[in-house]
Amino acid sequence: MSELTGLTGKATAAKELDAADELAGLRARFVLDHGVYLDGNSLGALPAAVPDRVADVVRRQWGELRIRSWDESGWWTAPERIGDRIAPLVGAAPGQIVVGDSTSVNVFKALVGAVRIAADGDGGGGRDEILVDATTFPTDGYIAGSAARLTGRTLRPVAPGEVPAALSERTAAVLLNHVDYRTGRLHDLPSLTAAVHAAGAVAVWDLCHSAGALPVGLDEHGVDLAVGCTYKYLNGGPGSPAYLYVRKGLQDRFDSPLPGWNSHAEPFGMREVYEPARGALRGRVGTPDILSMLALEAALEVWDGVPVEAVRAKSLALTDFFLECVGAYVPEGRVESLTPVRHEERGSQVALRCSDAGDVMKRLIERGIVGDFRHPDVLRFGFTPLYVGFTEVERAARVLAEVLA
Amino acid sequence: MSELTGLTGKATAAKELDAADELAGLRARFVLDHGVYLDGNSLGALPAAVPDRVADVVRRQWGELRIRSWDESGWWTAPERIGDRIAPLVGAAPGQIVVGDSTSVNVFKALVGAVRIAADGDGGGGRDEILVDATTFPTDGYIAGSAARLTGRTLRPVAPGEVPAALSERTAAVLLNHVDYRTGRLHDLPSLTAAVHAAGAVAVWDLCHSAGALPVGLDEHGVDLAVGCTYKYLNGGPGSPAYLYVRKGLQDRFDSPLPGWNSHAEPFGMREVYEPARGALRGRVGTPDILSMLALEAALEVWDGVPVEAVRAKSLALTDFFLECVGAYVPEGRVESLTPVRHEERGSQVALRCSDAGDVMKRLIERGIVGDFRHPDVLRFGFTPLYVGFTEVERAARVLAEVLA
Repeated sequence: MSELTGLTGKATAAKELDAADELAGLRARFVLDHGVYLDGNSLGALPAAVPDRVADVVRRQWGELRIRSWDESGWWTAPERIGDRIAPLVGAAPGQIVVGDSTSVNVFKALVGAVRIAADGDGGGGRDEILVDATTFPTDGYIAGSAARLTGRTLRPVAPGEVPAALSERTAAVLLNHVDYRTGRLHDLPSLTAAVHAAGAVAVWDLCHSAGALPVGLDEHGVDLAVGCTYKYLNGGPGSPAYLYVRKGLQDRFDSPLPGWNSHAEPFGMREVYEPARGALRGRVGTPDILSMLALEAALEVWDGVPVEAVRAKSLALTDFFLECVGAYVPEGRVESLTPVRHEERGSQVALRCSDAGDVMKRLIERGIVGDFRHPDVLRFGFTPLYVGFTEVERAARVLAEVLA
Repeated sequence: MSELTGLTGKATAAKELDAADELAGLRARFVLDHGVYLDGNSLGALPAAVPDRVADVVRRQWGELRIRSWDESGWWTAPERIGDRIAPLVGAAPGQIVVGDSTSVNVFKALVGAVRIAADGDGGGGRDEILVDATTFPTDGYIAGSAARLTGRTLRPVAPGEVPAALSERTAAVLLNHVDYRTGRLHDLPSLTAAVHAAGAVAVWDLCHSAGALPVGLDEHGVDLAVGCTYKYLNGGPGSPAYLYVRKGLQDRFDSPLPGWNSHAEPFGMREVYEPARGALRGRVGTPDILSMLALEAALEVWDGVPVEAVRAKSLALTDFFLECVGAYVPEGRVESLTPVRHEERGSQVALRCSDAGDVMKRLIERGIVGDFRHPDVLRFGFTPLYVGFTEVERAARVLAEVLA
């Protein structure tokens, strides 16, 4: 009886929360169905404006204008134009972000660039270590290993909380994740960046799991370089291009390990000698991937008039409510939340440890609740405030409890 | 009167050549208009199958299946599947090509990989030079400079014809273009590769201006590594992903400077330590750019049943005929062809030097003849045998003569 009351109570609460949700109308900007999609932290849902835009890019811009579209359809300037569109979402003034390449490739540019900036500030001297988040999504660690090898530095994996103690005059650069991909833990970007700077090192942040879900404040907190993907909370589509932020004050010292013709000061001069462009353009490499890039541009229109602060408030309300429902519905001890309870330590996902997580996620998906499984024992649920509502959250927790029973 | 006969004669000849052209029917596989498109060596025309395929990828695969498409729509395996589709066009057996990233980024992987293979074969020793085509498209030179800097080698630009004389026991790797982007000169891949091997060095070829226009024979000629773009003669669309070929026998020794999670032996194991996958997969880096990649896959279907040898024969006939018409129509001395007369030295483009090339190209484009201008004085015309016919070639030469008059 008390369980039934619990169920009824939560369902009612969900309806009330949805009714009061100022962002609820944004769901109409996406193509969705009757399932509950809690995997937007892996692949964001399709924004409704994208299909027609892509069709225009393919049929008219490519099919009819062909080569003329590099000028006439704004293809050539897309990387910096779309970068400026992302900028307000991560707290950056214009002229500091370019879009292009994968996150991995941008981590490489950022980290080698950071080491060179550190060496430059240091007279080329003794800063021989790169610190990397020991709990990072693997690719950052692999690429950091390559950057260390190619620049003659030592790579040292350190848990984010231990970074302040690990910093020294040997530290060249530090690569950290704003939100941990497994647990959903939000790291303290302002204080960690300050600690890195106090040690005279360069701070590089990976925003894959925070951009579009919470305020980042790149400029405000003095972050040096940052990278992020655009297919999670920015809904750019499968494998859509990533971005690179280089703080204005460092752009003249940013020395890319991938100096392609697109970052040349005079790209159509076809010069034999490389002379880097000024500004964020310096992060460009080869010919930009137009289809994916312009799909992303259309996808970013869902942000028109949407303050990131409101998104953050709803994100926390969603994850709070999910944890509450899970607490009410799921038998004690059946799952363990890895996601911090404190708001200042939480991203926009909930990770539940569960010994049979692989099987459980399969059954959830069969029942229309789509999250994902992270090896070996984690159920991961992402909450995209632009299109997830409270009634869905309650339903997801209820089905989860049924599957676990 | 003789000029008029010349005109009538060429126009008649063009009609006869079109009538006898076995590839003429392939034009229907593309979206074209009434202009003459001679810029397929910069951006290939839109294959007719692409728009519907892209719409399906966006609306159904992304919009409806969402995350499930990584498995169910074959997204995850696209880089190697599409690589295998390109393979026969460049004379490669399956399992040696992966698609992804830009050409510039692939040049970086290939060249650093080549230097490491050379060092490995040499006990890490004295091979301290990278040779690069001194006439290369700029990005290859810039990236080669970065690869040299990061691996502690010296970069030495050498004209392709002088490579044999420049090779020595100091040479680690050589980066060459199969066809020169400005002049359309075809370099002798078999003999240059053999010379590089005789010196104990590793041969890297850039196929941007040859793949899809002429037989390459990567396997036959023992090329070690190769890269190419897919938006010229392969018609993949603006900025479509490039590809990397690593010869089967070298794959276990290919040590990528961009070891992303996609090239891990167990990508979903989320391992802290990088362990490279076997085979061509080792060239992958980050999450593949699915929209662009699957557009390319659809574009490659135009090759069904089309032998590259027939394409090459038509390409030579087209460029021969264009040079013939230009010779007949354009006043002596008004333009100078930079493109070799000998077939074995010619790619699939004609480059005409002309002091007012920038202006001339503008006026040609206004009249529906689309080529491009290469700084400072080159008119560049690309001939894509899949969709360019002889009547169009005659018309292009005729309008060129009128513009030049």
